Amino acid sequence: MKLLDEIADVGRDARRGGWSRHLGDDAETELREWFTEAAARRGLDVETDGNLNVWAWWGEPGPDAVVTGSHLDSVPGGGAYDGPLGVVSALAALDALSARGVVPTRPVAVVVFAEEEGGRFGVPCLGARLLTGSLDPDRARGLRDPDGVTLAEALGHRAAGLGSDPERLARVGCFVELHVEQGRALAPRGDALAVGSTIVAHGRWRLSFTGRADHAGTTRLADRRDPMVPAAATVLAARAAMARHGDEARATVGRLHATPGGTNVVPSRVDLWLDARGPLPQALLDDVAAAAHAAAADEGCMVEVRAESVSGAVTLDPGLADTLATITGAGRLPTAAGHDAGVLAAHVPTGMLHVRNPTGVSHAPDEHAEDADAEAGVRALADVLEELCR
Amino acid sequence: MKLLDEIADVGRDARRGGWSRHLGDDAETELREWFTEAAARRGLDVETDGNLNVWAWWGEPGPDAVVTGSHLDSVPGGGAYDGPLGVVSALAALDALSARGVVPTRPVAVVVFAEEEGGRFGVPCLGARLLTGSLDPDRARGLRDPDGVTLAEALGHRAAGLGSDPERLARVGCFVELHVEQGRALAPRGDALAVGSTIVAHGRWRLSFTGRADHAGTTRLADRRDPMVPAAATVLAARAAMARHGDEARATVGRLHATPGGTNVVPSRVDLWLDARGPLPQALLDDVAAAAHAAAADEGCMVEVRAESVSGAVTLDPGLADTLATITGAGRLPTAAGHDAGVLAAHVPTGMLHVRNPTGVSHAPDEHAEDADAEAGVRALADVLEELCR
Repeated sequence: MKLLDEIADVGRDARRGGWSRHLGDDAETELREWFTEAAARRGLDVETDGNLNVWAWWGEPGPDAVVTGSHLDSVPGGGAYDGPLGVVSALAALDALSARGVVPTRPVAVVVFAEEEGGRFGVPCLGARLLTGSLDPDRARGLRDPDGVTLAEALGHRAAGLGSDPERLARVGCFVELHVEQGRALAPRGDALAVGSTIVAHGRWRLSFTGRADHAGTTRLADRRDPMVPAAATVLAARAAMARHGDEARATVGRLHATPGGTNVVPSRVDLWLDARGPLPQALLDDVAAAAHAAAADEGCMVEVRAESVSGAVTLDPGLADTLATITGAGRLPTAAGHDAGVLAAHVPTGMLHVRNPTGVSHAPDEHAEDADAEAGVRALADVLEELCR
Repeated sequence: MKLLDEIADVGRDARRGGWSRHLGDDAETELREWFTEAAARRGLDVETDGNLNVWAWWGEPGPDAVVTGSHLDSVPGGGAYDGPLGVVSALAALDALSARGVVPTRPVAVVVFAEEEGGRFGVPCLGARLLTGSLDPDRARGLRDPDGVTLAEALGHRAAGLGSDPERLARVGCFVELHVEQGRALAPRGDALAVGSTIVAHGRWRLSFTGRADHAGTTRLADRRDPMVPAAATVLAARAAMARHGDEARATVGRLHATPGGTNVVPSRVDLWLDARGPLPQALLDDVAAAAHAAAADEGCMVEVRAESVSGAVTLDPGLADTLATITGAGRLPTAAGHDAGVLAAHVPTGMLHVRNPTGVSHAPDEHAEDADAEAGVRALADVLEELCR
């Protein structure tokens, strides 16, 4: 897709592979500038709200606006489609409406939500959660990135503007997010597109194990309080819990950090992050936390468990889903991935369109969408917007 | 100790606690400058060899010189004594000899070996291994730090000078390293000092598990090839092997790195480092590697095992140890920590003096030596040097 090609080199991650684009880094900043220019070229009015979400307006901002969009940030070493496909498809759909001579009777906007992946500050859908008031701005300001920098420090004077923004939210009459499929359902079905039905419940917890740093060579078994040992046991407990909690359950430890992290040092502390999803992520966490506490006690270590974000299951607006299905002819698809749409859904009628991912891989460089499918997505989104903005 | 106080603030690590001083970073560079000035103030001639070891000469450089010293770099988040105590004690001992009016008949030198901990480039005793020819300079130039920077890139034009330096090594008639105790033997004995007898065999291996990065929410159990799972199993296998291989065996995983390292991403790769010591570290590694391969196969992952450094057991020079014991009245102490002295011992008569560590903790901020013990160490080292340089 031509618009995706424009940003294909932004945030390439030579070390991890794929792309790394996180709130406030060079790549994400460049993408914001790119979006602002791309929107301005289309005659859209661009504004950044107090929560760093970017809005590009076709017509006067709100109320009762038809809003579409997604995010431009990525996971570390992620794919090129997760987020950007929704943003560029939104711009391309507006191009299509212009080409069709559509004159909206409702305002139309493209939104780019900030830090959807939580790749830098840990809380996913950061901009959308702040906008809707589901994340306390004081808590947000205190979030730290892997280098220990707080969101408040990273944002400087802009940090004062974080927080619930009911006026801006009230402009949104409905929200439709187009997103690359993050799973393996559409290829076997032979379908290029699907209408989102539900988003699975999701929690992220940080488990911090503390022990006693010491010399790797001289410290005897009896003297060790090595937090790496219960952390490793907890990784295996998470895998076992995933297997036990049924086909829909997910438990992943993709991030683990040892302090001080020397080869010849028994660590003082190991932090790991559990990403749990499914019908009952809290129950899964409870199992893993119990195993973590037992393993920590065995080693003479402590463990602290803190929720970084917890999101309940979301059913997207059934009426809007019916409209999307009627217009596009696409079938329904539940998703086990989180989305800004899931946060918006508690406040405004919200729908999703998924575009087939032939690899099934996501959050990784192999994530893909064929051009023909992406173009089908743009046409479907344009059809939907045309119908909604009449 | 006054000389230690001078460098107490260099390389403080606010994030990890303790001190981080690694080859070429600001702290280590400052310590080199500090040492150069401290030696120059004493009228010593300072030179840095092609392997970044610093030599301060009292009298014409070699041959048959009496050399003492240690290192100034640290593990990440290490203690204040491991290395620096030996360097400052060497300078203080030379002060004592001057005060006593000793006129050496052999050249005397204080040496600061580079990157003893391998904290940045992974290979411990880097400067000593290169000097003695036990590490190939081409291999050294290709070593990478955690940011992917090679030693060649870090050193620039100086990288060309790395490699075996038999002329410089031939100047060394004998080497005595004073070091803080890295264990818990001397406090129960009621001894401030001990003479080193042996250094245990030691290996460092990097185990790299590769799988397939994917989405933490959408990827089903059957589709997962998650390298974190066999990595965790390997941490537990290392602990089990340590318990099985007897009281002298050590197996530690203090460093583990997931790529890409996102909370919501099944990693593509996990690297972990095994530090193994004892009578048969290779046998211990073999056990752990077998467990790693089995766990990787279970998960559909691959694992590659590479040695970063392997050092056999060292018996320090018995004659020199007798001399040290006679002069100081101290008992003997084997050590399970690695030292530059262990590398030098294959080439020149080498001895060690250990200074009591009342906490027993090392490679961590709690590492300690009482001033009175450190002063006893300086007196003992001065007595030894006086005897040796007659």
